Parts: sequence; structure tokens; C-alpha cells
Amino acid sequence: MFTLFSVDDHIVEPPGVWVDRVPAALRDRVPHVVERDGRQMWVWDGGQEPTMGLNAVAGKPIETWGAEPTRFEDMIPGCYDPHERAKDLLSNGIFASVAFPTLPGFAGRKFQTFPDKDLAVLCVQAWNDFMIDEWCGAQPDLFVPMSIAPVWDVELAVAETRRMIERGTKALCWMEDPANLGLPGYHTDYWHPLFALCEDAGLPVCMHIGGALPSVTLDGTVPMVEIAAAFAHAARSSVNMMVSPIPRVFPDIKLVWSEGGIGWITAALERADRQWERHKYWTHLDEVDVLPSAVAKRNMWFCMIEEPLGLQYRHDFVVDHILWESDYPHADTPFPHTQAACKALFERVPQEEIDAITHGNAEALFGFPLSAALISRYGVN
Amino acid sequence: MFTLFSVDDHIVEPPGVWVDRVPAALRDRVPHVVERDGRQMWVWDGGQEPTMGLNAVAGKPIETWGAEPTRFEDMIPGCYDPHERAKDLLSNGIFASVAFPTLPGFAGRKFQTFPDKDLAVLCVQAWNDFMIDEWCGAQPDLFVPMSIAPVWDVELAVAETRRMIERGTKALCWMEDPANLGLPGYHTDYWHPLFALCEDAGLPVCMHIGGALPSVTLDGTVPMVEIAAAFAHAARSSVNMMVSPIPRVFPDIKLVWSEGGIGWITAALERADRQWERHKYWTHLDEVDVLPSAVAKRNMWFCMIEEPLGLQYRHDFVVDHILWESDYPHADTPFPHTQAACKALFERVPQEEIDAITHGNAEALFGFPLSAALISRYGVN
Repeated sequence: MFTLFSVDDHIVEPPGVWVDRVPAALRDRVPHVVERDGRQMWVWDGGQEPTMGLNAVAGKPIETWGAEPTRFEDMIPGCYDPHERAKDLLSNGIFASVAFPTLPGFAGRKFQTFPDKDLAVLCVQAWNDFMIDEWCGAQPDLFVPMSIAPVWDVELAVAETRRMIERGTKALCWMEDPANLGLPGYHTDYWHPLFALCEDAGLPVCMHIGGALPSVTLDGTVPMVEIAAAFAHAARSSVNMMVSPIPRVFPDIKLVWSEGGIGWITAALERADRQWERHKYWTHLDEVDVLPSAVAKRNMWFCMIEEPLGLQYRHDFVVDHILWESDYPHADTPFPHTQAACKALFERVPQEEIDAITHGNAEALFGFPLSAALISRYGVN
Repeated sequence: MFTLFSVDDHIVEPPGVWVDRVPAALRDRVPHVVERDGRQMWVWDGGQEPTMGLNAVAGKPIETWGAEPTRFEDMIPGCYDPHERAKDLLSNGIFASVAFPTLPGFAGRKFQTFPDKDLAVLCVQAWNDFMIDEWCGAQPDLFVPMSIAPVWDVELAVAETRRMIERGTKALCWMEDPANLGLPGYHTDYWHPLFALCEDAGLPVCMHIGGALPSVTLDGTVPMVEIAAAFAHAARSSVNMMVSPIPRVFPDIKLVWSEGGIGWITAALERADRQWERHKYWTHLDEVDVLPSAVAKRNMWFCMIEEPLGLQYRHDFVVDHILWESDYPHADTPFPHTQAACKALFERVPQEEIDAITHGNAEALFGFPLSAALISRYGVN
């Protein structure tokens, strides 16, 4: 049996995340669920979201995918209920889980669109408190707390991340490339205070694909294009980071690309190093001369669900920087057949490397050792 | 010695390309070179281009790169003179060369910006006639003719491509993803008449990276980002094509991704196939069920300059669909040390596969056999 640490799952927020955590006078202004035309919708001051459980397809036959769930009862309860989630994960041999937000968007960037920024900060804090108290609180030895932050202001982001470190967060959910969202990019020093804090605290910065895409093109409206080519965004944004000052100014920073895949990395490093050597003089990078591949192998972790071929190339990168993910309850998840999927995936990989990729690397990276009690209770050999 | 067929070089247009081919009354309106503030510039009705020889760095030490040449005398003559180009290529063991335009942009898309579209068509035709008569005319057994076309109108593109097939063109220089330029994309049937013509004529469609990028982001203004991450555009646009109707409606179409590299392809196919299988029902692709990898291995060719690691993965793709390129006179070219670079690159590759990748695949693809007379005169074993 495979002992699994999933570094990328997704929470469909239950209705009370925000209304349960703000003063009564604000309950109509923060995200709350209303019934409208036979569906449940998120509504808040300045916006609404008609899809309740984007991509919450776990446990459904692939022939039936497509219509997004519009009611909680259309999903399996593990989507939004941490107790049910825990049962599902444990039944599949998953003993730790880092889970990303849905309604707030990756990094919580949807709150940037809120006209009232004080309200937006309250909403960030409410999601973070929900994560610690309610989600992780349901099974603290299984759920790895990850926090979001106000993406529109680095000082606010630092303050909230500092608060969450004190509350026990083990990761920051952040943006692959804020420049795509019109925010300062990683070639400026704007975000340095936040990365300094994460470096000091040893807090991994997790950047999920889709967290900051370039503007959608016409072809991008064809679903299969974005689905099949999504790794290209992780490739571009990780190379962007590799050649940026961030991992050179903060040599101990931990950067995680979630759901971006692994098979393309070696090619990306080969190209980046060659171009760095050829172009470092006129681009004035010769004085900060650390090769992109050295930065990637030191500061970056990449994640995989099922990539047998990508896994074959692992020694051309670094085995200790490859992580496994489940993506529950999204379309990429092998749930409920996780163990069978891992059996096929790791068929020709030595046990020591399986242990590293399935859980050992993640335990070290997040500072979250698997619970021996959980494994002994739910692990079946 | 390596017998080389370069499927990707670049022409810096000499000053007479347009003015030599239009009636006297139009000479001030088509692109022509003027002296201004000590530099030479391209000027035309509605625009100007201050960089004469974008990226024309062949033969210069990498420490001196950066300032774009602003005068023809700043470049080595092989940039713009086909006789000098022939000498350079032959001295490096290159016996066939497909060359892309500079001033017109890839596919000739700059002419789309001309306010007078009749003039724009004349300019497309002038470049194409220059290609056949002057460039390839200088050494017809060495230079492989490639044509451009009006990108803003499929009927005009078909008419010009038909004219050029009669004139002997061996390839169409086209856009990776016209949707990025606000034109109809490959998920519409707009371009079908052009692809039908290319399929009928066996004409390879060559799509160079940078031919149709998504809108530039803030980070994209940092030179090293675009340089190092450029393969991500080839990855995205080739996957876009793989999941589009084009290679399914035109099963004999030949699609070439120029300068996009090869090392990432196997990972792209692994992901695309997995996503196709999982999402084909709700995206209504189950009725046109040809896997992306099958399309890529049948209809697509990918190009490489120096990618030892990418080359190691070649059997996970198809050796016969990998091409070598020189990129003369751009920054990626190993010129004037082409043979030494190939020696290092192909060190552990069997001769039969070297022959295929260095020239055999390209000879078959472009229908352009290498000249035995040139090889016997310039080849040194």
C-alpha cells in the first residue's frame, strides 16, 4: 500500500465560512449562499458566483462530467465537509492533505475585486480562520493548514501571513505571476517583504496553475485547450521565477508549483541554462550568476498526479523536489481508485524514491510529519 | 562531419526587397531604408522600424550582444546577402536552409497593420518574389523557398499561396495561433481553405515561436523571461493545434513548430492524452476520437538546436519528426562552430538517427533532397 501526502486538494467552501465569522451587520455583504431559480449561488457586496462547486466531480463517471454542480447536494459531501473529506482521503491511503480555496480563487485573489477593501481583508481573515478552526480542526493530524493573503497590498499580505504563522499555518497560497493580474511582478522588489517573511518562517509558497493566467485568448475559451495545455502556464511562470531576483535574494525560499506537472521541467531547465549563459551579459545578469537550474533544484518543488513518463525523467531533475498530489475533488483526481493509480504509476520506481515522492519530500517541505496513529489505524498493507 | 539541413534560419532583408519590385509611384509607400540620425531605418506608408537586424548577432562574442544593429555594415554580410549566406552555411556543413522573414514578421503578419490593404498584398508578393528570384536564385540547390501570405484574409492567403506553389515554394510561413492576434483561431473553420490547399500540395506549414504570442505581460518586458520561457508558447500553441479540428479534418497536413524545442513534447503528449480521455465526453470530442499524441506523431514536426537532454527522450516521441535547425544569424545559432556543437550534441546517438534528424527527415518533409554536388564540393569527412 502507498502512504500518501497530497500537496494539492481543493475545498468547496461550506455556506458558513464568512457569515459565521463576521458581525451580524456585515452578513449580507460577505459571501453568502442564496437560493435563486432553483440553484444555490454565492452572493456578496459587489459580485456573485453562479457555480457552487467548480469542477467538483470526484466519484462521478467521466461520461457525466460537465454541468457544474449548482447545489451542495449535487456533490459528494467530502467536497465541503471536512469530516467526510477525512473519511474519503483515509480510505484511499492519503494521510495528509494541503487544500486550496475555491470561491476566493487561488491566493484569495477574488477579494481584490471587492470594492470595499476593509471588507475584503475581513473576508481573507475569515477564510483563514475557517481553515484553521473548522477545516483543519476537524482532523488536525490530517489537514495541513494553508493560508491566503490580501494580494493587492504587500503590507497587508505580510501582516495577515504573520498572523497566520502564529495561528499555525504551514503554507502560503500565492500567485504564480502577479504581473499577469496587473500587479507588480517578481522582477520588482515589491513582494520582497512577503518572501522575506516566508523565508524566515520556512513557509512554502504554493502557486497553483490558474492562480494568475495571462489574459485569456480566443482559443482559451475552448475547454480542452486550457485543460490540456495548462502545464504551459506552470512552465512559463516557473521559468519567470527562476530568472527573477526572488530565489537569488532569498536563497532559502521554498516555491511549490501545484498541478503543473513534472515531465517538462528538465527541458525547461536545459533551455533556461543555455539561454542564461548566452544572454547574461547584455541582460546584466552576469553579476547575479546562479544558473536557473541551480535555483530550480534548490528552491522549487513540482507536483504530479499521474505522469509515468515524467517520472522516468526524475533523475534529470531532483527526486527530492517532486511531490505527489491527489487533486480531490477535481477532475484530475484518481479518487476513489488512488491506490490502483499509484500502483500503475510507481511500478518501476524503487521503494526509497516512492517513499520520497509520495510523502517523505512533502513531510520535510511542509514540516508536517504523517501521523503514526492514523497510519496504524487506516493503513492496510 | 555532419551533413546538415537547417529548417530555421532568418533573413535580414536587403534594402531593395520592396522598392525593386513595385512601380516607381509606390516606392515611397512600401518599406524602404532611410538614413535618420546616423542610423538606417525601415520606413513605409503608416509605419517605421528602427531596428534593422533584430537579433543579428551571428559571429559576434556573446559579451557584446544587446545593442541591435542599426546599420547593414554592423552585421556580417551573410545576414542579408544570399551569396555570403551560402558561403557561411556551406563552410559549416549546412547544405539546405529554410529562412524566415524579419521585417514582415513571421507569416508576414506586419502587413496586416498596413492601412492600405492593396499595398499590403503587393508587399507580401514582393517579399515572396524576392525569396524565389533573389534569395533562392543565388543558390537554388541550397536555399529552400518559403512563402508568406496575407494573414488578414483567408481567400487572399489561398490565392497567394496558390501563386507561390506554382512559383516553386516548398513551405508556408504561418502563425502558431492566430487567435492571439485577434484573428479566427484553429477551432473555427475559417482557415480550412488554406489548410486544404497545403494538404493537397504537401506544403509544410512552418510556425515559428513568436509568430503569434498572447498579449505581453509586465514580466514579458524582462528580456530573459521571454528568451528562457519561449518554449512555453510552442507548447501551448502546439497543444492547441493538437486538440483542434485542423489535423483531424486534414489528416495529411504537415505542421512544423520552429525553434520551439523538443524536450517538453513527451510530457505535453502525456498530459494531453490523459486529459483528452477524461474530458472528451463533456467537451464533445468523443466523436472525433483521435488522441492528441496520435495527431502529433502523424502531423507535427518539432525542431531543436542544441538539446542533449531533449534528444535523450526522442524515442518517447518519434525520431522521424525531429528536425535540426541552425537559427543563423540569431542568438541561438552555434555558427561559426556548428560542427563542434553537433559533435557534442549527437555524441551518443546512432548514425542512422543522426542522419534522420540532421537532414533525412527535413529532406522528406520539404521534398528538397540535398545536392550531391554541393556535398561533394564542400563536405569534408
